[in-house]
Amino acid sequence: MQEFIQLTEYMADEAGTIIRHYFRQSFEIDTKEDETPVTAADRAVEKRLREIIEMHRPQDGILGEEFGPKESQNGFTWVIDPIDGTKSFMIGRPTFGTLIALAENGAPVLGTIDQPISQERWIGAKGEPTLFNGKTVKTRSCTSLKDAIVGSTSPSQMPETWPKMYDQFKSVIWGGDCYSYGLIANGWLDCVIESGLATYDYMALPPIIEGAGGLICDWDGNPLTMASEGQILALGDASLKEQALTFLAA
Amino acid sequence: MQEFIQLTEYMADEAGTIIRHYFRQSFEIDTKEDETPVTAADRAVEKRLREIIEMHRPQDGILGEEFGPKESQNGFTWVIDPIDGTKSFMIGRPTFGTLIALAENGAPVLGTIDQPISQERWIGAKGEPTLFNGKTVKTRSCTSLKDAIVGSTSPSQMPETWPKMYDQFKSVIWGGDCYSYGLIANGWLDCVIESGLATYDYMALPPIIEGAGGLICDWDGNPLTMASEGQILALGDASLKEQALTFLAA
Repeated sequence: MQEFIQLTEYMADEAGTIIRHYFRQSFEIDTKEDETPVTAADRAVEKRLREIIEMHRPQDGILGEEFGPKESQNGFTWVIDPIDGTKSFMIGRPTFGTLIALAENGAPVLGTIDQPISQERWIGAKGEPTLFNGKTVKTRSCTSLKDAIVGSTSPSQMPETWPKMYDQFKSVIWGGDCYSYGLIANGWLDCVIESGLATYDYMALPPIIEGAGGLICDWDGNPLTMASEGQILALGDASLKEQALTFLAA
Repeated sequence: MQEFIQLTEYMADEAGTIIRHYFRQSFEIDTKEDETPVTAADRAVEKRLREIIEMHRPQDGILGEEFGPKESQNGFTWVIDPIDGTKSFMIGRPTFGTLIALAENGAPVLGTIDQPISQERWIGAKGEPTLFNGKTVKTRSCTSLKDAIVGSTSPSQMPETWPKMYDQFKSVIWGGDCYSYGLIANGWLDCVIESGLATYDYMALPPIIEGAGGLICDWDGNPLTMASEGQILALGDASLKEQALTFLAA
């Protein structure tokens, strides 16, 4: 696992160098069919990370946002989102991040969230404590939804019942991208509820949340795998699971 | 005006020192009647800024978020929001800011947005170019809503027609607090639409937006004053005004 962690750190360093070069600069903007802005930075980062994986781990599979998938020959697959939070990147707001995950037979075993502007990095590895810039972090206790602050990136990706979040939770905050999951690991935020996430948007998150003492699952309460549908519930305090799932099922 | 700008810079420096001390630390949380979290940092900053104003400008009025208003004896009033974006501050996300404005007979003549963690500061003064960390900045051109990225802090403060923003604008991004207005000044964001803002939430913004070439008004198209109702339209390109007001009136 230490070899995988070192490789991930190197990949995140390389991604950060590229992203800082493009951040807040004028450049050509492309758009995909779903109108998500895709930047030159996005592609340059994924290209570089794929090069590194090909060089060091040629038999591993690769699933990225920008280029086609590469089949795994050994059960290991790297899952990459070069810039999670493209809108934030586009407007110059440093709440986006590079997500790098390693899956073993479809289950996440290693994940990093890297914010290259504020230079903040979370790393989680199965069975090990989550590190934030090299220091162990822990989620905080919160035993009632009424005491919980919940984050979500956008109401447009939520069911129409989302206004009820304001009744159930202490407070709701919008627009965090992957950064919000890091804030849970550090014990500053209690919950994130999101839907519509792609595999590369969530695969880095379980090792980070779980290694800090939290819980992450889909809206049916199942662990996240490469086959999950992208409805995410992340909690700093696992004891909130049943309350949160009951709310989501209503 | 230079004397006022220097005093504002000193106030923002002092606020930043206090805020960095409290950011991401455990501390007692109070709540006001409207459930906005108010922190020890909020009060400590406003207390310090009031001390500075009392010492240097004893005849000026003061309107703050945390303590009662002080009447102006000379037409000048300082308008202070020690931490705009309290929720962001609470979860450890550095998109909040200290807002310091100076109004002359109710109209804003000087404003600053200071983000003390990323150490980013916007200063606008009537008739002068807006400065971002000491450098002149300009808004960007955008002549159609269909090409515009629009930001807003929360859908809960918007009219129920907010989903139509997704049809009218190129892209919608949530959760920016005062930071989003700075991003307009720098030409990275095209528009912010918000409602429910208090006087201390918006009085610093007009000199910053206008000094960078943009336009800011209420939803009827009127300039912002201390008497405005807190419905804000901010544009990087003033030529979008009529399109945006037509959308807001619908």
